[in-house]
Amino acid sequence: MTQRAPRVGIIMGSTSDAPTLRKAAEMLERLEVPFEMRVVSAHRTPDLLFRYAEEAEARGLQVIIAGAGGAAHLPGMVAAKTVLPVLGVPILSHALHGLDSLLSIVQMPGGIPVGTLAIGDAGAKNAALLAASILALHDAPLRERIQAFRAEQTRAALESEV
Amino acid sequence: MTQRAPRVGIIMGSTSDAPTLRKAAEMLERLEVPFEMRVVSAHRTPDLLFRYAEEAEARGLQVIIAGAGGAAHLPGMVAAKTVLPVLGVPILSHALHGLDSLLSIVQMPGGIPVGTLAIGDAGAKNAALLAASILALHDAPLRERIQAFRAEQTRAALESEV
Amino acid sequence: MTQRAPRVGIIMGSTSDAPTLRKAAEMLERLEVPFEMRVVSAHRTPDLLFRYAEEAEARGLQVIIAGAGGAAHLPGMVAAKTVLPVLGVPILSHALHGLDSLLSIVQMPGGIPVGTLAIGDAGAKNAALLAASILALHDAPLRERIQAFRAEQTRAALESEV
Amino acid sequence: MTQRAPRVGIIMGSTSDAPTLRKAAEMLERLEVPFEMRVVSAHRTPDLLFRYAEEAEARGLQVIIAGAGGAAHLPGMVAAKTVLPVLGVPILSHALHGLDSLLSIVQMPGGIPVGTLAIGDAGAKNAALLAASILALHDAPLRERIQAFRAEQTRAALESEV
Amino acid sequence: MTQRAPRVGIIMGSTSDAPTLRKAAEMLERLEVPFEMRVVSAHRTPDLLFRYAEEAEARGLQVIIAGAGGAAHLPGMVAAKTVLPVLGVPILSHALHGLDSLLSIVQMPGGIPVGTLAIGDAGAKNAALLAASILALHDAPLRERIQAFRAEQTRAALESEV
Amino acid sequence: MTQRAPRVGIIMGSTSDAPTLRKAAEMLERLEVPFEMRVVSAHRTPDLLFRYAEEAEARGLQVIIAGAGGAAHLPGMVAAKTVLPVLGVPILSHALHGLDSLLSIVQMPGGIPVGTLAIGDAGAKNAALLAASILALHDAPLRERIQAFRAEQTRAALESEV
Amino acid sequence: MTQRAPRVGIIMGSTSDAPTLRKAAEMLERLEVPFEMRVVSAHRTPDLLFRYAEEAEARGLQVIIAGAGGAAHLPGMVAAKTVLPVLGVPILSHALHGLDSLLSIVQMPGGIPVGTLAIGDAGAKNAALLAASILALHDAPLRERIQAFRAEQTRAALESEV
Amino acid sequence: MTQRAPRVGIIMGSTSDAPTLRKAAEMLERLEVPFEMRVVSAHRTPDLLFRYAEEAEARGLQVIIAGAGGAAHLPGMVAAKTVLPVLGVPILSHALHGLDSLLSIVQMPGGIPVGTLAIGDAGAKNAALLAASILALHDAPLRERIQAFRAEQTRAALESEV
Repeated sequence: MTQRAPRVGIIMGSTSDAPTLRKAAEMLERLEVPFEMRVVSAHRTPDLLFRYAEEAEARGLQVIIAGAGGAAHLPGMVAAKTVLPVLGVPILSHALHGLDSLLSIVQMPGGIPVGTLAIGDAGAKNAALLAASILALHDAPLRERIQAFRAEQTRAALESEV
Repeated sequence: MTQRAPRVGIIMGSTSDAPTLRKAAEMLERLEVPFEMRVVSAHRTPDLLFRYAEEAEARGLQVIIAGAGGAAHLPGMVAAKTVLPVLGVPILSHALHGLDSLLSIVQMPGGIPVGTLAIGDAGAKNAALLAASILALHDAPLRERIQAFRAEQTRAALESEV
Repeated sequence: MTQRAPRVGIIMGSTSDAPTLRKAAEMLERLEVPFEMRVVSAHRTPDLLFRYAEEAEARGLQVIIAGAGGAAHLPGMVAAKTVLPVLGVPILSHALHGLDSLLSIVQMPGGIPVGTLAIGDAGAKNAALLAASILALHDAPLRERIQAFRAEQTRAALESEV
Repeated sequence: MTQRAPRVGIIMGSTSDAPTLRKAAEMLERLEVPFEMRVVSAHRTPDLLFRYAEEAEARGLQVIIAGAGGAAHLPGMVAAKTVLPVLGVPILSHALHGLDSLLSIVQMPGGIPVGTLAIGDAGAKNAALLAASILALHDAPLRERIQAFRAEQTRAALESEV
Repeated sequence: MTQRAPRVGIIMGSTSDAPTLRKAAEMLERLEVPFEMRVVSAHRTPDLLFRYAEEAEARGLQVIIAGAGGAAHLPGMVAAKTVLPVLGVPILSHALHGLDSLLSIVQMPGGIPVGTLAIGDAGAKNAALLAASILALHDAPLRERIQAFRAEQTRAALESEV
Repeated sequence: MTQRAPRVGIIMGSTSDAPTLRKAAEMLERLEVPFEMRVVSAHRTPDLLFRYAEEAEARGLQVIIAGAGGAAHLPGMVAAKTVLPVLGVPILSHALHGLDSLLSIVQMPGGIPVGTLAIGDAGAKNAALLAASILALHDAPLRERIQAFRAEQTRAALESEV
Repeated sequence: MTQRAPRVGIIMGSTSDAPTLRKAAEMLERLEVPFEMRVVSAHRTPDLLFRYAEEAEARGLQVIIAGAGGAAHLPGMVAAKTVLPVLGVPILSHALHGLDSLLSIVQMPGGIPVGTLAIGDAGAKNAALLAASILALHDAPLRERIQAFRAEQTRAALESEV
Repeated sequence: MTQRAPRVGIIMGSTSDAPTLRKAAEMLERLEVPFEMRVVSAHRTPDLLFRYAEEAEARGLQVIIAGAGGAAHLPGMVAAKTVLPVLGVPILSHALHGLDSLLSIVQMPGGIPVGTLAIGDAGAKNAALLAASILALHDAPLRERIQAFRAEQTRAALESEV
């Protein structure tokens, strides 16, 4: 957890989701975006979920990244309780390999949006990048850091040999 | 809505789910189980959802039937807020024909159960039958009505001609 | 198997399903719900299946938990032969990862209900919890034990660190 | 129903399956294979299902064609109760377009076989053809009629214009 | 198209996608967010796609909503060419009902994010809402309009009768 | 390969399918049904496939079991060239876990039947059992051996402990 | 059918596939590529299929477009019998909407290639375009006609209004 | 990379795709078709992708093989920028086992074709074979090498023992 007031809240349904969501944390650290990360379970701690969502804006959070697997209700229920942008990361589930997680997150009804990323690690990393690109609309230095990351990523791809 | 105090609460995410859930209501009426039916949207009325689930037991409800489609969070979130038995009915969704609804309802994590029925009308009818079979454990006349329904159903099948 | 007369019958199609169904047994033990557990195969012992279902009510069973994989016919066929509540647990199958088990159990036609839980261990654990919540409608001490389990589960989630 | 003693039994879970299974009946009529056709529901008339399967061999049936939809348990349960060859026809279901029917029929565990045909009309027609090819192993005139059908089918394809 | 300088660009792969994307336009109009809407095909006008993405930021766009169906490459390719937030709307395709569109949009590799919404109309409407919630981070009156929309939506749900 | 003239031909598309098809061979051996087993590839040896199918009946084969994976054309193409009963075994493929194999085998058009069994080992074993049950229609000792196998299978299930 | 010696052979499993394959014919006509079109059924006319594939090269055909649905064996079996490039078009099937057709065509084992296009009309049109692009490698005027088509297509997209 | 001017360009989205695409390279080497192989990422190096596609024809390439996984945009975007034949190889992705890759590549809209091969290694090998068969239309020695490969493949299959 960074020391400055967090601008992004990363929440997950279970500690078993942490290895995935850490990809989001690492990307935010690289981009120097302050964030917090904690377990908020839609099913085991529903009251905490509501409180977290209700207080997020006042606490200074600007984007919420929520990861969950299986019948993944966390991102959608957070979105139901805040007007902050909510990004959902489907966790790679055991039986159905994240297809259940993906559909549970992305197929939200009209009226309550969740911006959904890819299943698993790539999705977590991209949730952080999308959160950063949202914050960068009013944070020029952050936009430069994103552009530097993108340029570095492009350079690495250009140099890769097969 | 029947006049006696409702023992089963039928809730749904949207009025567009009503034609499906009415199959549950019709079955409960046939079995003379008092029930109530209303719209409780996980995403549009999350506070009502929590209040409904919290008050259900004190209001005398014994089973909750929750129908929802797409990213169907209603049954699981109700189950997170009550220890009453919760039965889920996946609504036949437009794009993915209820596969999203089914997975969003049935793939609950260990700790919070939702007894899930079939997609669409058959599932709604069966949710009512399962609710009745639960209540019948301590209601002999209801058990007889269920058995009569089952006997009639068997008789009709035996007499069907092709 | 507990010593008091069993209130829940856990059956499974094969000994290979036992590691999954044991999650149901463990939860019932924790909640002090007496149960029995045995192999009843729809395909290899159909007569036993019918006899089991026919005698269940008279033997004092109140809920039946049936686990099966692949073309999983056990839960539905038990439900066809009893008016007791039947809960189905889809076993994680080899080729299709339980999608076949799930659809074979949940897509019952109107008239014969099976309350279906998640694929695999989570589903087995939740079948036990749902069975307990059904029995708790007329068993206040059991309801308290369920609520204690739920409170403990919530507490553990609140304390989890990432 | 033909007048000679039926050699093939066509059964289905519901009258709503009749339009599909009639394709099997029409093909058997064309090939002059005596058959019977009736509703036998695994879920609504389980005792009839068992009796039908137990008596089939003694009644002179040699092949059973069973059609069912959704959680389609009829073919597998008949197969569990007879050593006659059982052929399964997955009915095109409403929500999942027969994928549930197909998996419920075809994914039988080792030990109890069901020969499964395509979803819907093509499957019903082919169940009749496969039943006929089984009977033709000891019925030379029937084999000739099958060959004549196949030759005619080939001729029609050869003559088709686009 | 609104008269003020557009803040959101809505693009789509084909005029046949317009009925879906119009749901996004209607929501932006209701929230008084200036936008533009046009056809930019990844496959038929790739150069336009690149130019559009490259110029978007300089032209004052802050969020891009891209809808596409089948092998839906438009959202991901726009995202590859800009650091603006890109939101993807999977169009309900003919054969596979949008499952192809959804996977083509959401399964982006780590490094280039697309925030994906639901298949079809609900997704288009929610893309607009998510875009608005992003812009509202620095636009208090817009946040109030979003909150008013949400309050109205909640009120309508609370009043709905079944 | 047994010494008596084979009555069942087991063919497969590749040696990599042999571990699966050996389950069919083992069951036929147990039931004392003479068989042959060989590689016949629809794609790599199409002429052999046609010759095999054309000569099968004259060579005394009565049932053909064909196993194949992925775009599994072997069973259907054999069926197109013979009126013998053809049983198809979908091999568990690498990427799609046999779903491609299953659909490629079972979804035959009306006119050419393939009796399809489960994906993988269970399907191979059951193909042998179904072939035996076909042959047993005119082979009373074989029928007794099948019944003995089934009785033993039932006994083992009844005795299994969990 | 055009009058010059056909360079592309369009074949299909059934006359019911003709409306789809006509999209291929129309595109070839537009590009002035001589072709022939006929019904060649893998299952109903297997000998014709083999003869067609064997003679194709000597008859001057350079590319074969094969459309088929369900257990679609036509493209793969043609490819097994010729070294000409074979392009496969999955027909939109009734029950599974072409998913079965697609997997049956595309999942060919290593050693026998089929270049597969999209399900349905788009795939048929694109099969013609791909065939033309193959022929254009040694036909400069044809390449110019393809480029003109592409330019016109781009122009139309650029001019489309929403 | 061979020394003669490459006729086939093999490109892939990431070095992690190289083990799969090497199967294409090995087959081209065996058939003595000069080729080049490099990383061109649609998402990380979009400008390189466009330049590669634009210059391919002038550089003497005649066929492009493009492999990509997940939201696999590389083949389709190359095809959008060249009239050379483009063949797509879906990489076996982590979560969805290449189903996402397959649909992202094969479901191209009418107007821009990609000839798609099987998921994974088989598809890569077959892409090389299909490219060779295209080039062989005007390269008799290459056609003979393909025919020799095919004959050897057939011989090996004929000799395989099980």
